[in-house]
Amino acid sequence: MKARVFVILKSGVLDPQGAAIGTALAGMGFDGVESVRQGKVFEIEMSGTDRAAAQERLDTMCRRLLANTVIEDYSIELG
Amino acid sequence: MKARVFVILKSGVLDPQGAAIGTALAGMGFDGVESVRQGKVFEIEMSGTDRAAAQERLDTMCRRLLANTVIEDYSIELG
Repeated sequence: MKARVFVILKSGVLDPQGAAIGTALAGMGFDGVESVRQGKVFEIEMSGTDRAAAQERLDTMCRRLLANTVIEDYSIELG
Repeated sequence: MKARVFVILKSGVLDPQGAAIGTALAGMGFDGVESVRQGKVFEIEMSGTDRAAAQERLDTMCRRLLANTVIEDYSIELG
């Protein structure tokens, strides 16, 4: 089973990396970019076929390792 | 218009960061994790409503700045 986990800074938390990318895009002539926020994505290949169990395990992984829930939000997509 | 751009190492390109996360998860007792690959996600807020034009602009942004197409694949999701 393939899963994608997104971890991105909560809105309201300063994202200087995203801001720098936005500035760079504007400097390269790309108009109409209003904001850029950068985050991480994890592609996780898991054994087993129980989707509910996988979802729960991924949720625990996020809380314990993949995301810093003080400043980051995460979301899980099971493929 | 909101877009998500994913940039991830091509399969075949060594991903030591992903491998380290996989090893850490196994060490924490998470069984059944077969592989982990880490990539980047960009959440881009764009003005305008022309989806085709936005898609094309995002594609150019990826090739020129967001992705290193020698070693990375990218994909674009328009929200």
